[in-house]
Amino acid sequence: MIEEADVAARIVLAHGGGGELTDELIRGQILPRLGNPALNLLADAATLEVVGAALALTTDAYVVQPLVFPGGDIGRLAVCGTVNDLAMVGAEPVALALAMVLEEGLDESMLQRVLDSIASTGREAGVDVVTGDTKVVEHGRAEGMYITTTGLGRVLDGVSLGVDHVEAGDAVLINGTIAEHGLAVLSRRKGLSFASDLVSDAAPLAGLANALVRELKGVRLLRDPTRGGVAGVLADLAAAGHSVEIEESAVPITPTARAAADLLGLDPLTVANEGKFVAVVACEQADRALALCREHRLGTNAAVIGRVTDRQPAIAELMTTIGGRRVIQKPYGEQLPRIC
Amino acid sequence: MIEEADVAARIVLAHGGGGELTDELIRGQILPRLGNPALNLLADAATLEVVGAALALTTDAYVVQPLVFPGGDIGRLAVCGTVNDLAMVGAEPVALALAMVLEEGLDESMLQRVLDSIASTGREAGVDVVTGDTKVVEHGRAEGMYITTTGLGRVLDGVSLGVDHVEAGDAVLINGTIAEHGLAVLSRRKGLSFASDLVSDAAPLAGLANALVRELKGVRLLRDPTRGGVAGVLADLAAAGHSVEIEESAVPITPTARAAADLLGLDPLTVANEGKFVAVVACEQADRALALCREHRLGTNAAVIGRVTDRQPAIAELMTTIGGRRVIQKPYGEQLPRIC
Repeated sequence: MIEEADVAARIVLAHGGGGELTDELIRGQILPRLGNPALNLLADAATLEVVGAALALTTDAYVVQPLVFPGGDIGRLAVCGTVNDLAMVGAEPVALALAMVLEEGLDESMLQRVLDSIASTGREAGVDVVTGDTKVVEHGRAEGMYITTTGLGRVLDGVSLGVDHVEAGDAVLINGTIAEHGLAVLSRRKGLSFASDLVSDAAPLAGLANALVRELKGVRLLRDPTRGGVAGVLADLAAAGHSVEIEESAVPITPTARAAADLLGLDPLTVANEGKFVAVVACEQADRALALCREHRLGTNAAVIGRVTDRQPAIAELMTTIGGRRVIQKPYGEQLPRIC
Repeated sequence: MIEEADVAARIVLAHGGGGELTDELIRGQILPRLGNPALNLLADAATLEVVGAALALTTDAYVVQPLVFPGGDIGRLAVCGTVNDLAMVGAEPVALALAMVLEEGLDESMLQRVLDSIASTGREAGVDVVTGDTKVVEHGRAEGMYITTTGLGRVLDGVSLGVDHVEAGDAVLINGTIAEHGLAVLSRRKGLSFASDLVSDAAPLAGLANALVRELKGVRLLRDPTRGGVAGVLADLAAAGHSVEIEESAVPITPTARAAADLLGLDPLTVANEGKFVAVVACEQADRALALCREHRLGTNAAVIGRVTDRQPAIAELMTTIGGRRVIQKPYGEQLPRIC
């Protein structure tokens, strides 16, 4: 017999899903024990000053299955995710650290493939792995390999991003079509053959995101909509006191991604991206931000998808294509286990 | 039928053991793909300069079993190991990043215990966790939890340590009794009841190690003898072209540790430590180094255990208590799986 109290006191998959339960774990268990001003911000990367240098530090564990998926593999994913977390706080990547937990019996050719991918994605992002560690666990005690990448970055001069800078009237922008990473991984896992042109969007965003904050003083906030998707980012904005209105018709999505999401019963707004950012930009700079994005190969499908309003209490709302309104919420638990 | 080529092309536990096979993995697979001047040094931590600040970066994955052992747990181990890697390159810890892979079904009380331990060890070492990530994998796809900690440090002004600085005549020193971490974990795993006073030495060494390099210009090299033990450090010195002669009778070890090692058929020189460093110090500063260590609670049993010689080709040798000599070698594979 499993008692209710017992159930409540165990870790479930959804604690890692990036939704409400992840928030509960972080706010209920982690912050009360480890909290400090830097960690409490729960930013994509921590920013800190060390002997006069403004630095950013971020870490991510990757447990994606399968290890190789359309458009990438766990190595590309790890480098992109880490570089992007640095870019989201206005930092350029300086160095990566790589820790691998390998499963006994892993094919060395798979390890080689992933290492090659880490190397090539690092070159694409202009950053090296400068330190690392490798451990091996018994067969069955991991699934091929888990990777943790940590990124050290340099915050660009004078750049300060954050939810505190967001103002009513600001534009909400995204640099391209949504939901492709999560849907590509899930389609591969479920063997959806129609979805063969669904490819993960995993890409290192530092080049584009750094350019944006260098050029425009009106960038308030950058967030990468990974686990929890765009909905997670918008729900966080609302939780921080900023209402947003999003036009469903303005949100870029490919017909294939929409069809795959429909088939899988998923709201594409909640599906993970790995080469996208949501930017909140001062209204008067929205056009320039959009133009800058569209000039870059990772922003050709950029769009303004909505705006921040002064409605209180704060809420994130979707203006649907059929003229309705619905509240955008963070997924409660785990829709897509081990998507990253 | 398993073909030989097939066996050779798979990861085995020993690839993570810190011995010869780990070296083969690093030099044969990782460096050819990811190599760069910082990574190629294979130091405990990478050192790099960012806008004028001399920084150190290190990462370690922890997969120790059991999660709790005499003298510590995976959380204390992770913080100590990471802080110590920073200290070994002459850096003081500035910030930690924490990534956790949790197994579905893990007791939240165990997670809480480990988080508390990370917090208290961080306070002991004077460093906070400033960023983190948590993933969850299905029951059976991990073993309770795996932790990766990454440390950012500031290299102390004017400090430069490294095997290049080592000279014939230098003294080799250790800050206390050896082999306790590995033996404590293994005794718990094997249920050796006589070994109840064997306790892991896991401790954050930055305070002592930083003081040593601040006070003495003659510190050439610091290395923490974790996987591979003291033998691994000495074999690395020999591989870098520096012969060492170690007096077995001078190596500090408790009677209990010696008895446990004998019973388990292990050479204590090859067993992991998590609160020890091997220091190579200019001969004329050996006494002061020893005195500094002995003033510190983590160095009360410090001893000079040998010296660097000019013998070529380079070799690490043990002068045994019975008057013989034997070559000190790095263990080939995995003696103690998942000791850290």
